[in-house]
Amino acid sequence: MSFDLKKYLQEKKELVDSYLREYFSRPINPERLHEAMRYSLFAGGKRLRPILCIASYEACGGESEHILPQASAIELIHTYSLIHDDLPAMDNDDLRRGKPTNHKVFGEAMAILAGDALLTEAFVMFTQNRVFEAENVVEALRELAEAAGPFGMVGGQAEDILSENKEPDPKTLHFIHTHKTGALIRASVSIAPILAGAPRGYLEGLSIYGEKIGLAFQIVDDILDVIGEEERLGKRPGADMDKGKVTYPALYGLERSRAAAEELVNEARAAISRIEKGDGPLTAIAGYILKRME
Amino acid sequence: MSFDLKKYLQEKKELVDSYLREYFSRPINPERLHEAMRYSLFAGGKRLRPILCIASYEACGGESEHILPQASAIELIHTYSLIHDDLPAMDNDDLRRGKPTNHKVFGEAMAILAGDALLTEAFVMFTQNRVFEAENVVEALRELAEAAGPFGMVGGQAEDILSENKEPDPKTLHFIHTHKTGALIRASVSIAPILAGAPRGYLEGLSIYGEKIGLAFQIVDDILDVIGEEERLGKRPGADMDKGKVTYPALYGLERSRAAAEELVNEARAAISRIEKGDGPLTAIAGYILKRME
Repeated sequence: MSFDLKKYLQEKKELVDSYLREYFSRPINPERLHEAMRYSLFAGGKRLRPILCIASYEACGGESEHILPQASAIELIHTYSLIHDDLPAMDNDDLRRGKPTNHKVFGEAMAILAGDALLTEAFVMFTQNRVFEAENVVEALRELAEAAGPFGMVGGQAEDILSENKEPDPKTLHFIHTHKTGALIRASVSIAPILAGAPRGYLEGLSIYGEKIGLAFQIVDDILDVIGEEERLGKRPGADMDKGKVTYPALYGLERSRAAAEELVNEARAAISRIEKGDGPLTAIAGYILKRME
Repeated sequence: MSFDLKKYLQEKKELVDSYLREYFSRPINPERLHEAMRYSLFAGGKRLRPILCIASYEACGGESEHILPQASAIELIHTYSLIHDDLPAMDNDDLRRGKPTNHKVFGEAMAILAGDALLTEAFVMFTQNRVFEAENVVEALRELAEAAGPFGMVGGQAEDILSENKEPDPKTLHFIHTHKTGALIRASVSIAPILAGAPRGYLEGLSIYGEKIGLAFQIVDDILDVIGEEERLGKRPGADMDKGKVTYPALYGLERSRAAAEELVNEARAAISRIEKGDGPLTAIAGYILKRME
């Protein structure tokens, strides 16, 4: 009678997709900008961050539907970051999830603008609310924006760009991982207890959980870059190494990297053991992150 | 005993500059990102949008200091838009306010990220608040994000890019002007009555004022592109025309363009005649916009 994660992920993904489809059915002018935004937003993302947000909210006793705008706003921010990261001036990637990257289809100018548009609209979307206290919306929005901005994700991406082809060092790698991907994953989990107005212990436990799985997720991503098959990754394995990017396995080897990911997942589960009783989605998602590298 | 606008602009600019300097004294990693953000943020902007926001708030009976975070957040959004607009893939400008553009100094990748960072941090800054009702902060933030996003500024910039070297048409020109520059100027004025929780008539009058001066501002900018001196503009006159951009004078001629700007300024003043009694900053700023073209 273990938790059916596959079904859970499918159900919540459909909720998020349906919310996003409805939201972006309203015309945007020019139509070409609208197309460019939708192209990347509906390019087959797994909606992991929104699902984490929903699962965290459920652990606080809330209902999925109520947090859909805020959960989906995170996906807009994630999508914008992928579009900008792929640009020729940044990682110069031609493929993303097996499809041509945004600028390959719409040109650089429209790709930059589609990213800007998604990032900005995320904060409009975030304010859609019928159930939360306004104070909590403001605090959660602040948490999310901090995680996405120069003190979080953008700082991580900037360090990543500046560190290319430099001698790998553990401190820099840790900074990049915790900021570039870790911060937004952590915020995906931590905004839910803020919005819910949950007791302090919930925010603390869930924040630790988010931090640990955020780092585990990136380590596994690094491992997959070494061992992964092209199909599963949607990009060529070894791509990061070719670009002279610092990765976990390059610094610590595969075995220690795997062990580190496993330990982080165990710590993540321990942090929520008193919040999510028994076998729930957060516990299962932590395990799912490890399974990606099997 | 007419209103001393020069002194007013100077005083409010210093308030905004001082708030921004203090805010960005906190270190950001990597330092190069911090430098790139500050380079454009402190490149000599007149802080017109924050000053409009402050003046609008004063017209609602508020004190400058209380709205500084929200007013300054608008300047972050304005600055990000300039950095991204100047990029090689967009307008490909080498100079801005007489200085090398951000990507000329820091490279394209860092310029894109500095823009992303300023845009995101604007929403963190916006949540700094000790006096406003949280409901009003949420509503005002939504108004600002809508004005800056795909339904506002980004939509206008996208249309501008797509319309280059096309036959000028009045409808497209109006869309570009009201969205690319108009929307953010309008929001600079309209968020103040929202934050203040001012009576409905204030929001209506101030929104019309913001809309009218936003459009007047852009028409005058177009006129200056034709007649202006390099020094006053910080860029070469005729630059827009060279790029095949649609402008007001190209479509309507100089004389009709001037007349249109004057009429808009008169309408703007009429809209706030019962809000700002006598000779106040909003009335004076509307006149100041016209003076730029003398």
